[in-house]
Amino acid sequence: MPDERPLRAVALGGGHGLHTTLTALRRITSDVTAVVTVADDGGSSGRLRRELGVLPPGDLRQALSALASAEDGDPLWPRVFQSRFGGTGALAGHAVGNLLLAGLFEVTGDPVAALDEACRLHGIFGRVLPMSAEPLCIEAQVSGLNGEDELHTIRGQVAVASTPGKVRRISLTSERRPGQNPHACDDAVQAVLDADVVLLGPGSWFTSVLVHLLLPELRRALVYSQAVKVVILNLVPQPGETAGFSPEQHLDVLCDHAPELTIDAVIADRASVPTPDRLYRAAAEIGAQAQLTDVAAPDQPGRHAPDALATSVRKALGIPEVGMEGSWR
Amino acid sequence: MPDERPLRAVALGGGHGLHTTLTALRRITSDVTAVVTVADDGGSSGRLRRELGVLPPGDLRQALSALASAEDGDPLWPRVFQSRFGGTGALAGHAVGNLLLAGLFEVTGDPVAALDEACRLHGIFGRVLPMSAEPLCIEAQVSGLNGEDELHTIRGQVAVASTPGKVRRISLTSERRPGQNPHACDDAVQAVLDADVVLLGPGSWFTSVLVHLLLPELRRALVYSQAVKVVILNLVPQPGETAGFSPEQHLDVLCDHAPELTIDAVIADRASVPTPDRLYRAAAEIGAQAQLTDVAAPDQPGRHAPDALATSVRKALGIPEVGMEGSWR
Repeated sequence: MPDERPLRAVALGGGHGLHTTLTALRRITSDVTAVVTVADDGGSSGRLRRELGVLPPGDLRQALSALASAEDGDPLWPRVFQSRFGGTGALAGHAVGNLLLAGLFEVTGDPVAALDEACRLHGIFGRVLPMSAEPLCIEAQVSGLNGEDELHTIRGQVAVASTPGKVRRISLTSERRPGQNPHACDDAVQAVLDADVVLLGPGSWFTSVLVHLLLPELRRALVYSQAVKVVILNLVPQPGETAGFSPEQHLDVLCDHAPELTIDAVIADRASVPTPDRLYRAAAEIGAQAQLTDVAAPDQPGRHAPDALATSVRKALGIPEVGMEGSWR
Repeated sequence: MPDERPLRAVALGGGHGLHTTLTALRRITSDVTAVVTVADDGGSSGRLRRELGVLPPGDLRQALSALASAEDGDPLWPRVFQSRFGGTGALAGHAVGNLLLAGLFEVTGDPVAALDEACRLHGIFGRVLPMSAEPLCIEAQVSGLNGEDELHTIRGQVAVASTPGKVRRISLTSERRPGQNPHACDDAVQAVLDADVVLLGPGSWFTSVLVHLLLPELRRALVYSQAVKVVILNLVPQPGETAGFSPEQHLDVLCDHAPELTIDAVIADRASVPTPDRLYRAAAEIGAQAQLTDVAAPDQPGRHAPDALATSVRKALGIPEVGMEGSWR
């Protein structure tokens, strides 16, 4: 018997984009690790990080949900995690899973152990890891707010994601240790180093995707990892963060935030690329082959179809379409 | 091999008293069912029932904790359930387990299924059941508030438990169906019918102990059950509910609330009974033998020692002291 093991896949991101890539990867392999942004300051997550000082749990919860939905286990716990309290009281809008993750974080004092336990409860084989063990704050340099060339600093994921200006550059700060550089989660760094394939994107380009490149240890792991590195572009520019951005501009700002990083494949939806030649060129500049294909979900505008995405990722990896699970020698 | 099974034990109550009897019963048998009051309207539980309309989870959570502490499993989940959010925000004071039980109640729509799942998570072999599947309200007829003989109606467990008057009688109403009689939980009724031994008390005499006798199905199950029925008296009268009550008066009000119920054994702490003859007589009137013994915890004033209580319950059952677990033919 050759020494075969499941393909090790890592997806970096947050929100709906990460949900889609995790769902796609689970169609290729059972060994999927999510590396999740912890810079969210909106909604239930924002209330919890402000009130309790814990990691914002919402994106982590969504990643658990994505991986659990691919399993055959009892769906009770995923449903409990995803349900939200109603009404107009103090709990209204809180996802039960956010409160439970916050409790696990506090009791264990170790977000990785807490998330491993949450994975067990969800019947998940893979892992959900925070990009950092501490809550992070996003700052953005934004132009166009008050005269075209003047740069303003905007703080907080919600503020950055909804700015009417143009985001030029983002940076990360530690919330608990102001003025000090935030650290990446060790297990997330190791997962990237050990991976066979790493997916970056789609999602809010600055606040969910590029944000991972701002942790030096994680960026270095991406550079040194022998994994096939795949960038998945958004279907449409996001109002606020990337209004008016062309597909190739998405790659340009990625390169701005990690000039030393090379990419193997760029997956883009054919209908979302007005000037394919420019995208092929921009991809080649970072070492990548652009793959223009149909990856938009026919029934959900703005969302990728996990099945089509899985096919594209298989193609980028050079593994056959058939068979339930990718394996790696 | 004779057909042996573990002794089936049921404890009815709430709060600290129930915690103690569950701990004691687990030293006798692995098959312990808690039947728990759901009339609490104070603290975190009261906030949750008011905000979400769910069963007050606090006493249920304490019962889970008591049964879990007797198991060898991973203590993480019991610790998470029992931990409380700090600070001064919207979540301050909420036990994580209360929020989780509220979420399970909402998602399953079935408190018994929700609690069975919580038992699994705690690694508990027995069960924790609510006395009723709906939140209940306690009303008390209280004298001594405004002239000795005038009766006032006081509503709510917290108000009743802390009244400066003298509680004469209590009754239960349904919160969701005003004016209609509340129903007992079917599984709780069956557990009492199937039991080999049932414990009542100690605890807040009216609001945690006698309250179980106010659900007609549960009272009838207690009357018809072939179980050995054991009442455990409090060590001291409770300010508010039972200020100035003698041990025999505790039995008198129990009889007032369920005249057709006979009891097999009454366990009382020797030092808490000023007039043993009167207690022996009052016990005999409800069919019981009074057992005066040392059951107070030496290190916790007002609390029973679970070990001593287990010894007294074994004696009432006529099962030997030695051996890990009671069994029943």
